[in-house]
Amino acid sequence: MTGAEDNGNGPRTSNNLKARRIALDTHQEPVIITRRDCPVCRSEGFSAHARVQLEARDRQIIATLYQIDSDLLEADEAALSDSAWELLGVEEGELIHLRHPLPLQSIGGLRGRIFGERFSRDSMRAIIEDVAAGRYADIHLAMLLTIMATQPLDDAELVHLTEAMIEVGDRLRWKRSPIADKHCVGGLPGHRTTPLVVAMVAANGLWMPKTSSRAITSPAGTADTMETLTRVDLNLDDMQRVVEQENGCLVWGGAVRLSPVDDVLIRISRVMDLDAEGQLVASVLSKKIAAGSSHLVLDVPVGATAKIRSRADGERLAGRLAAVANAFGVETRILLTDGSQPVGNGIGPALEARDILAVLDNSANVPLDLRERSIELAGALLELCGAAEPGRGKTLAAGSLDSGRALAKFVAICEAQGRFSQPPLSCQQVVVEAARRGQVRRFDNRRLARIAKLAGAPAAAAAGLDLHVHLGDPVEIGQPLYTIHAETVGELNYAREFAGSNGDIITIAADGEEAP
Amino acid sequence: MTGAEDNGNGPRTSNNLKARRIALDTHQEPVIITRRDCPVCRSEGFSAHARVQLEARDRQIIATLYQIDSDLLEADEAALSDSAWELLGVEEGELIHLRHPLPLQSIGGLRGRIFGERFSRDSMRAIIEDVAAGRYADIHLAMLLTIMATQPLDDAELVHLTEAMIEVGDRLRWKRSPIADKHCVGGLPGHRTTPLVVAMVAANGLWMPKTSSRAITSPAGTADTMETLTRVDLNLDDMQRVVEQENGCLVWGGAVRLSPVDDVLIRISRVMDLDAEGQLVASVLSKKIAAGSSHLVLDVPVGATAKIRSRADGERLAGRLAAVANAFGVETRILLTDGSQPVGNGIGPALEARDILAVLDNSANVPLDLRERSIELAGALLELCGAAEPGRGKTLAAGSLDSGRALAKFVAICEAQGRFSQPPLSCQQVVVEAARRGQVRRFDNRRLARIAKLAGAPAAAAAGLDLHVHLGDPVEIGQPLYTIHAETVGELNYAREFAGSNGDIITIAADGEEAP
Repeated sequence: MTGAEDNGNGPRTSNNLKARRIALDTHQEPVIITRRDCPVCRSEGFSAHARVQLEARDRQIIATLYQIDSDLLEADEAALSDSAWELLGVEEGELIHLRHPLPLQSIGGLRGRIFGERFSRDSMRAIIEDVAAGRYADIHLAMLLTIMATQPLDDAELVHLTEAMIEVGDRLRWKRSPIADKHCVGGLPGHRTTPLVVAMVAANGLWMPKTSSRAITSPAGTADTMETLTRVDLNLDDMQRVVEQENGCLVWGGAVRLSPVDDVLIRISRVMDLDAEGQLVASVLSKKIAAGSSHLVLDVPVGATAKIRSRADGERLAGRLAAVANAFGVETRILLTDGSQPVGNGIGPALEARDILAVLDNSANVPLDLRERSIELAGALLELCGAAEPGRGKTLAAGSLDSGRALAKFVAICEAQGRFSQPPLSCQQVVVEAARRGQVRRFDNRRLARIAKLAGAPAAAAAGLDLHVHLGDPVEIGQPLYTIHAETVGELNYAREFAGSNGDIITIAADGEEAP
Repeated sequence: MTGAEDNGNGPRTSNNLKARRIALDTHQEPVIITRRDCPVCRSEGFSAHARVQLEARDRQIIATLYQIDSDLLEADEAALSDSAWELLGVEEGELIHLRHPLPLQSIGGLRGRIFGERFSRDSMRAIIEDVAAGRYADIHLAMLLTIMATQPLDDAELVHLTEAMIEVGDRLRWKRSPIADKHCVGGLPGHRTTPLVVAMVAANGLWMPKTSSRAITSPAGTADTMETLTRVDLNLDDMQRVVEQENGCLVWGGAVRLSPVDDVLIRISRVMDLDAEGQLVASVLSKKIAAGSSHLVLDVPVGATAKIRSRADGERLAGRLAAVANAFGVETRILLTDGSQPVGNGIGPALEARDILAVLDNSANVPLDLRERSIELAGALLELCGAAEPGRGKTLAAGSLDSGRALAKFVAICEAQGRFSQPPLSCQQVVVEAARRGQVRRFDNRRLARIAKLAGAPAAAAAGLDLHVHLGDPVEIGQPLYTIHAETVGELNYAREFAGSNGDIITIAADGEEAP
């Protein structure tokens, strides 16, 4: 054979460019920009929007290539986005090596699954390893999630997925057992029980090292809410220190790299506006198992406009969660709860945080539904872990709220995490009033969540909405139904417009009239 | 209600930035870069990687936002990628208005389809209109194509998709009838019959205004091959002029905006390395129907390593193509052909062009299989259009080759399109030799195509491979099997490595031995 010296796999003697940081924020997407006349691109045949493998020191990543015709860059320079810069760990002027990425073998597993094969342990692991290494383009990630939504994973595949997601991340080991955990399969606005459950459970001596997600398609996740009260981006060491000191913590799962693939999948799900069941189960359980949880209470709210719309769906999902949890030796108890209306009054990070503090404070305006739901969950967890006799868990949990022990524990946890502060207040509000007289008969949870998101939640922490009525309440014309909160005028108006053209989000029926 | 003046939908009195062109090539993806401290982003809550609607004059597009911390830009400036610049049609310094894109209603149709609903005419049209307007992110496009692959479209949905793809593009009307057309459902390397069929059919007086695609997952599409011989990026007016003058043309479909959505879907399919059947049918037929074709011959090669692997699959696909074509009043004839080995010797744009010229020239080294296949297709088309009696089409087609009339017509078409030139030659070659003695028993078409792509095809026009043997040929140890052609050393070596570790791409069996 004839041929040449550098085959692209050998030593990095050619195809090198000098790294330049241009402080370009592309969020998670690694981007590299070169001159169009850059000799490396010409010799390798790289064109704009190509995916290119970058190598420096012992790291390699895949980035999207853009090309520029200007003297902002020299021909031997490559500008990196902040995300590429951090993943690659280079310094200004350091040489980076460019090459064609090898074909992704794991894509074959995706294609096979489309045409009727099942994911094996190996094929699933190969896929998740490629995702974790950033080798999948958004297009591949969307393929994976769409396949999982259209042709749901069976139990064996779900165990493979969960296992693979655990294996590519860090894993916590605790000095004590049991390790208590809870999770709510979302879909209900507000409903921020987790911080209260951690406070009650930790106040009763159990360890509950809680990691939570940010919102996927909802106006707030527990991590978004907690961030208005304390630091949530703790690393593993800090998290362990907080738990050893205070029995519990409330941190963002993404920062501790438990199941890091989950956050990548969440970013894509958010754009797709879709949660695939398989992703949901693996997302929940991979984080619980990686966090070392041994006992798990699952809250599944069921309601016509909740994520889970019928009891049958709720039981099916609960069954899948329990089956996979059991495969990893995790004890579970599943509570199907009422999902017909928001729990608590606030929807949005800071407004939900305010409700949590009201419950802990036993203040006059405590949202009783949030208090009751939290007590129910904490009680179930205390019983599951053997910290309360069967049937006595709720009493024990409620006692820690009433005595102020849960509040003290919550504040101590926040302070151990870095600070305890009051949630921010919004600077823009508008009140939405009842257009008719009657009784509150139905809430459209999805569209309520939509208003809160249009108002800026969760990115704008103080944004969201505050409910002034609940199911069954009598209302008069002009009585406030809810207040929209926003941080900018533009967002307030998006939300207000949507509310104005969706007058039936809260159904009000006259006495004796059937709700439509 | 309280609130403010600018609701984001009103006059563009605020939220404006000055457009700057920075000659940034991002291929099809519209990108906007602002300063991170840009007041519009702060007031609207735009963060990096957000999708933002840009408006200028009467146009609006959706772009991906990146943010930069540097004084390359002023706080009131926005840098646009070339793609965004062209779609928006602005001038340097012109004001562009930024706003949150409205939620894409058509995504609801995708979600519904995942959960068992069918696409209606309206839901499909809404989706394709959003795709055509650039409102879909890659993630949404991948969702659409994955759904179509996992849960294939039924005939009604396929008609809706085809119709929608036609309606968002231009449409040709011709002064004559019939309008002849052919299409090959690819998967077989080489096999570049289209230019020969156009030459023979046009030489016999029929109109054949051919638009072709670039490669999706293959080493060359007809448009890639023709581009090595002539201009293919003609607009509609030029295309019509060529056809009126010469009876036929061979242009790139993307340049004439027939079914423009097809090229968007092709870009995504290429990354997914997957052709969904529904996309394939709609892609083929939307372009044919938009091009005004009335009579269509479809070539479906069937072989173990072709795209269509069994006669049953071929007949099923042919049936779907014929059913949808009939719904639009297009007469079709479908030929299931031998897909067991490449047709012609060259694989890759320039190498296939060389084979075409050899057939037209009646030169000594004419690839007889390519000549025969082309005559068969041209004959079927002449008969279908009534230009030849049943059973006489092949004789008529062959006669135009033998007489040189087809060559003269081909050259005239190329010249009318802008130039007729010889295809480029590669500067890097390596010969792959037989490792054993015996008879050629089998070709792995997929891996042959893979070698050609690793060598740089289709982006590198002269790259690909040149076969020196065919099925049944006897070979000695050391006898050349094929030559890999590349334009760069790096690409040559990628292809050579793959060939070296895949010695069974061409199966050679000793006499009397069964092929494995």
